[in-house]
Amino acid sequence: MTDKIAVLGAGSWGTVLANLLVENGLNVALWTHNPKQIPEINETHHNQHYLPDFVLHDCLRATTDLAAAVAGATVILFVVPTNAIRSVAEQVAPLLTDQQPIIAHAAKGLELNTKLRVSQVLTAVLPKGAFRGPVVISGPSHAEDVATRDITTLTVASTDLQAAQTVQKLFMNDYFRLYTNTDVLGVELGAALKNVIAIGAGALHGLGYGDNTKAALMTRGLAEITRLGTHMGANPMTFIGLSGVGDLIVTCTSVHSRNWRAGNALGQGEKLPDVLAHMGMVVEGVSTAKVVHELAKDQDCDMPISEGIYQVLYQGAPIKTVITDLMAREGKPEFDFGLTLQNASKQV
Amino acid sequence: MTDKIAVLGAGSWGTVLANLLVENGLNVALWTHNPKQIPEINETHHNQHYLPDFVLHDCLRATTDLAAAVAGATVILFVVPTNAIRSVAEQVAPLLTDQQPIIAHAAKGLELNTKLRVSQVLTAVLPKGAFRGPVVISGPSHAEDVATRDITTLTVASTDLQAAQTVQKLFMNDYFRLYTNTDVLGVELGAALKNVIAIGAGALHGLGYGDNTKAALMTRGLAEITRLGTHMGANPMTFIGLSGVGDLIVTCTSVHSRNWRAGNALGQGEKLPDVLAHMGMVVEGVSTAKVVHELAKDQDCDMPISEGIYQVLYQGAPIKTVITDLMAREGKPEFDFGLTLQNASKQV
Repeated sequence: MTDKIAVLGAGSWGTVLANLLVENGLNVALWTHNPKQIPEINETHHNQHYLPDFVLHDCLRATTDLAAAVAGATVILFVVPTNAIRSVAEQVAPLLTDQQPIIAHAAKGLELNTKLRVSQVLTAVLPKGAFRGPVVISGPSHAEDVATRDITTLTVASTDLQAAQTVQKLFMNDYFRLYTNTDVLGVELGAALKNVIAIGAGALHGLGYGDNTKAALMTRGLAEITRLGTHMGANPMTFIGLSGVGDLIVTCTSVHSRNWRAGNALGQGEKLPDVLAHMGMVVEGVSTAKVVHELAKDQDCDMPISEGIYQVLYQGAPIKTVITDLMAREGKPEFDFGLTLQNASKQV
Repeated sequence: MTDKIAVLGAGSWGTVLANLLVENGLNVALWTHNPKQIPEINETHHNQHYLPDFVLHDCLRATTDLAAAVAGATVILFVVPTNAIRSVAEQVAPLLTDQQPIIAHAAKGLELNTKLRVSQVLTAVLPKGAFRGPVVISGPSHAEDVATRDITTLTVASTDLQAAQTVQKLFMNDYFRLYTNTDVLGVELGAALKNVIAIGAGALHGLGYGDNTKAALMTRGLAEITRLGTHMGANPMTFIGLSGVGDLIVTCTSVHSRNWRAGNALGQGEKLPDVLAHMGMVVEGVSTAKVVHELAKDQDCDMPISEGIYQVLYQGAPIKTVITDLMAREGKPEFDFGLTLQNASKQV
């Protein structure tokens, strides 16, 4: 029997993932809260707002009926924005019967007030014992490029390795390749925190800086993400992987990235409310910057770049002053994670 | 008394580093084997072949007299191509008196027949006890961008941390920032091996692949560099740093990179001898690919991407076939370095 997969959320990424699963021969239900998308997707095979140039598979079906979407699904994949995860999970919770589906998600953020990762929100809301996972799918993957079958690689992470391997098999094909990982904490942190650095990379571009400076920002940004992650118990190696370096690269160097575009506009002198108004989609990095500011404080962890971006976004600090301050700091060693590397080796 | 620094090699990177040290108020002698460069640099303040658009500092002085260049120098910095390191070091060896200079280098390759890293060549050739270091300077740094004072960050690595800190202080200014590291092996391997991956990134671009695919190549390329590095005893964290990820990013995403440009031409269907003839400068990644092929075999280490690039460069394999083969492999875990992480923690 063909597996049934429920994909919740018909933004660009949810739509492309659902479409790929249909291509892979699976039975897919794509849930959206927006009734306008139903005839678009089911009849004209388009997703006008998010993927205007892309023709969807004839067999892809969308529905606004959440109960129908999840009924009989062996995998339920959440692809809604981070700050909608909780409310959608609350609607899914009573629908989980004894089928024990794998719960997966492909969101890249941290919940604003609770500072929770998405898998933590799902675990908190969904009834214990009623599901397997959660599994996280993450990595360097612009939806637009997957839509055109650009070769794409992702991490699929879960403490339940078998669940991760099941999801890996469902998605893999000749242009889509997934690698398993068991470090959910590291994968989720990497995916979320890189969006803050991407705003910085966009801002440097907007200000006219060159390749060396962007590579400096990305590398030292990654160093501080790794520092916070290992403080919190993640395996530092995860940040060298697809949800760390990989996603950082694609988000910081591609004009497809909303976070990069928001930063670029800030670098060119636009004000944040105007930037967000022009974007018309969620820019995860803006709210994540606020959560990272809090987390770094809680963990007593030095994150000078993320903190600088927070200061620009929320405190009106001039970007140039932030950059000058960063460069004026004393010379330092490249890494200061000695202790946490030992922790990491215990986890492996 | 002002430190005297001898910079050996007046290519683009040697010239820019020497120029920066003059800006920092140091006494610098720039050695070149090419007498034509002397009036250019000393009188018209230009380096026509390597940096045609850049005006050098009035006080920068070049010489073809190696003995004069190194006399009284407290730091001797080698910035010649990897395969010239041995012969220049052999000329320097008899000139080292009891001044015990710090020996540093900024070359990014592996010696072709011996498979030695540059610091190993220097250590083998220079008289024992006659110098401190060696120190390696490496990181994401296109010379052209440093010349225009783009903010740049580097790693300065040595098992002699004090020597690394001395070099760090000499170079640092408001646009040039160095971080110390003691893992010379990891820094040198990262710097050399990323050039092979950059050829691959250029080839993907030449073939028309998009951002996801390039990020996939870079991340999985980094994973195999880390795999080989840890096999050989490097700290895996080094590869998340400036000489690893950082240099990989800048080399794989910038049109300034010779390795990337060579790959791009290959992707567009040019033949290797023509590509190299058009370049007019050393493309380190081409010879490094050969050394990596040997090292991976010696270490019994799986490096599918580097091996694919070797097959394209030296065995005439069609690039498209190599890519299809890479994607057809079975699903794998993201990392398989468990044991080496434990080794790493012992080193820290």
